[in-house]
Amino acid sequence: MTTVRIYVTYKPSVFDPQGETITNSIHALGHQDVKSVTVGKFFDVTVDGDQVEATVKQIAEELLVNFNMETYTYQVLEEK
Amino acid sequence: MTTVRIYVTYKPSVFDPQGETITNSIHALGHQDVKSVTVGKFFDVTVDGDQVEATVKQIAEELLVNFNMETYTYQVLEEK
Repeated sequence: MTTVRIYVTYKPSVFDPQGETITNSIHALGHQDVKSVTVGKFFDVTVDGDQVEATVKQIAEELLVNFNMETYTYQVLEEK
Repeated sequence: MTTVRIYVTYKPSVFDPQGETITNSIHALGHQDVKSVTVGKFFDVTVDGDQVEATVKQIAEELLVNFNMETYTYQVLEEK
């Protein structure tokens, strides 16, 4: 079993309104030392077998990522 | 400037309907090798100054995390 964390973020060219709103809220709370916030989602996917990387790429591309606006990276968290 | 990634997830005791739905969709696509999916959010927060850890904890606890259902961890991504 391998657990892979897939990170999905907006492409850098896409405006991130949620990050912008959170940054403003943080400043309103008095934390002027926070310069920016960007927001993303992650998916911890546990896969059985030896086709882990192929499976992860397929599900990211078929299901998890909207390539018009988003991009993804992934990282193996745990193998056992 | 330090960039910290704050990960927010459901507590293990809280049912994750989005993860459950995604797991079902992945199985419907034919990937029976995927055993489970859990979903989370992350926030990349860029902080200036030397109070980075205190600031990160405060904004997580005041703003980003709903402690009824969620928990968080964080990791320094980059210092420059």
